[in-house]
Amino acid sequence: MSLEREEPSHFGAGPAQLPTCVLQQAAKDLVNYKNLGLGIGEISHRSKDATQVIEDGKRHLRELMDIPDTHEVFFMQGGGTTGFSSLGTNLLRGYVGKTGRVGTCGYLVTGSWSEKAFEEAQRLRLPAEVVFDSREFDTEKKFGSIPEESQWSARVQGKKYAYVYLCENETVHGVEWPQLPRCLVEDDDVELVADLSSDILSREIDVSQYGVIMAGAQKNIGLAGLTVYIIKKSILKNIAAADEEILNELGIPVTPIAFDYPTVVKNNSAYNTIPIFTLHVMDLVFQHLLKKGGLPQQTIENKQKAKLLYEALDAYPEFYRLPVAKNCRSSMNVVFTLVDSSLDDQFLKDAAAQRLTGLKGHRSVGGFRASLYNALTVATVERLVQFVKAFAEEHK
Amino acid sequence: MSLEREEPSHFGAGPAQLPTCVLQQAAKDLVNYKNLGLGIGEISHRSKDATQVIEDGKRHLRELMDIPDTHEVFFMQGGGTTGFSSLGTNLLRGYVGKTGRVGTCGYLVTGSWSEKAFEEAQRLRLPAEVVFDSREFDTEKKFGSIPEESQWSARVQGKKYAYVYLCENETVHGVEWPQLPRCLVEDDDVELVADLSSDILSREIDVSQYGVIMAGAQKNIGLAGLTVYIIKKSILKNIAAADEEILNELGIPVTPIAFDYPTVVKNNSAYNTIPIFTLHVMDLVFQHLLKKGGLPQQTIENKQKAKLLYEALDAYPEFYRLPVAKNCRSSMNVVFTLVDSSLDDQFLKDAAAQRLTGLKGHRSVGGFRASLYNALTVATVERLVQFVKAFAEEHK
Repeated sequence: MSLEREEPSHFGAGPAQLPTCVLQQAAKDLVNYKNLGLGIGEISHRSKDATQVIEDGKRHLRELMDIPDTHEVFFMQGGGTTGFSSLGTNLLRGYVGKTGRVGTCGYLVTGSWSEKAFEEAQRLRLPAEVVFDSREFDTEKKFGSIPEESQWSARVQGKKYAYVYLCENETVHGVEWPQLPRCLVEDDDVELVADLSSDILSREIDVSQYGVIMAGAQKNIGLAGLTVYIIKKSILKNIAAADEEILNELGIPVTPIAFDYPTVVKNNSAYNTIPIFTLHVMDLVFQHLLKKGGLPQQTIENKQKAKLLYEALDAYPEFYRLPVAKNCRSSMNVVFTLVDSSLDDQFLKDAAAQRLTGLKGHRSVGGFRASLYNALTVATVERLVQFVKAFAEEHK
Repeated sequence: MSLEREEPSHFGAGPAQLPTCVLQQAAKDLVNYKNLGLGIGEISHRSKDATQVIEDGKRHLRELMDIPDTHEVFFMQGGGTTGFSSLGTNLLRGYVGKTGRVGTCGYLVTGSWSEKAFEEAQRLRLPAEVVFDSREFDTEKKFGSIPEESQWSARVQGKKYAYVYLCENETVHGVEWPQLPRCLVEDDDVELVADLSSDILSREIDVSQYGVIMAGAQKNIGLAGLTVYIIKKSILKNIAAADEEILNELGIPVTPIAFDYPTVVKNNSAYNTIPIFTLHVMDLVFQHLLKKGGLPQQTIENKQKAKLLYEALDAYPEFYRLPVAKNCRSSMNVVFTLVDSSLDDQFLKDAAAQRLTGLKGHRSVGGFRASLYNALTVATVERLVQFVKAFAEEHK
């Protein structure tokens, strides 16, 4: 059976294209792993080989992201939704463990994912509030910009936040935080909790600035089904130290056991049967990235890819429209529309004819979205750039 | 790259051996699905192809299990733990939706998995109680038997149960319900909720008798990472109909959105990004089972396998000890010990020399466990039987 394929050029927002060499190795290991005579998905999650996959995954991620000893790495089932759905109760417990009182859950809303995260916190009856919603400051009252810090930083002063949450890259709206807000990073009393589902491993970051990093795998990391966590060890200690009776009195909901951070960490991510095949694919991606030069190299490539595409689109302002403010344009999800939307179908059809797929925008936003995740090479993006230019030249 | 392997003979309790032909097809589809030029794990979970996988999975499971129209099928991320962790709040809501008042969550405890499920309900502060713990009735006060219904059925009479939970096959202790308790099946006011993680698809069952069937995939169904649900549509309606204010007043915790049954069903199992590769493997297993004759055929094979092994072990009562009562011996997980435990290491070593692996008992029970899931052929079990006999003959 052949495991060959032509290099894809799929710009879907996720689950996303993965490196072909990773999938080929994973396919082999699915049937027979290390000549065990069994596939990697057919062994106990507590076996030596499975434990090694977990350890390798943690170690390679640490190496890739230069994760300091102050932070723990673990994995849980689920995606971003499961992620933001369980972090509130964990972090609230941590705050109670640290201070003996309940704090507020603050949300910086800059697109549909941070909005969903806030709505879920409300739904779970947590003491949640929106610190700011970028639509308040936007001239069109839409998602597509991030206000200057000076416009909202006063709102967090003196507040007792259990944590402040943000989504670093809004996949649907193509809005990415250019840098973490200084007022939060520099405030030792606030734990910054960030959803990095669609920009993790896309560039070098300073992990020490985050209280918690949560990232679904299905963009830059691997297949859907797993979420990566990087968390300050001090937060884990605080969660474990929280007094159950106080928590009960304060009415903080109990986190389901499979998502209780201390339980998961204590069991080396294998409390709930971890999908070990999915984790192995993740580790193969980590190894692949390390081999090609790690995040310094990936940062260069991703900057180049985004620059090429944004420049091409910007070159035809009468033809393409870019709804996101320049200072927070996503390097992962390039959102654009055609001024003449009657050409939308033609655009997709002509692109598909050149094997350029996955370009349709999210149903809530419309238009187009080209996701430039790690597995998309510069050469592949150059093919898209040529198409974008040619299409504009032909129809302008 | 070769996708060949010798037929494995791995008796691990799960994640378990899968049919080789299924894994070979899955490996190919991981790299290039239906000549799309992309793997099945690299496409949007809302794309046409992914939706088809979801629909196929539902349809084939319906066909296999002869699921009546009164019941809905859906999939969620996670395993058994995530499953029992989220079903209590869902079912309690359903009970409130139906009756306007809160009910009790009853648990029939027959092994470590039903015990864990009860403990989690308590931990989540649900109004949970143990209907019976089989250890009360056991002469050695251990798990290994299921009391006659007459010994406990009076306890459920007149009670207002939101649901009664049981684990149909206790994987760790090798205890399987020989049939569902009549007093619950025949009581229209009680919803029977059953964990079928380790015996689903092992034999024909009457789905109409269950309120909810929940089953982690990693035994008879596929890779770890997904859980199958079969639920009465009336329960779904009741959950959706429950009044939020009443729920809040009654102090019933909110189910995290990714595990809220009506939300998941409304979004065709794709609310939280469903691991579509894992689902595809599941569907390939369903198709494989249908092709070889469905559950009637599988029932015959599994009966034969269990009979062969239990008979071989029973033939050496001075050598092998079987801790489980005959009337509730599991056909999936055959638990046994050596009378002379100093031979334990030798047993495992000699077995491994014949490629008979995964036989070590669960760490909480010790001894040995041979799991005879669907992917283990009669011929493979015959090899184990020969070994068991020869080992006894050599060392008795």
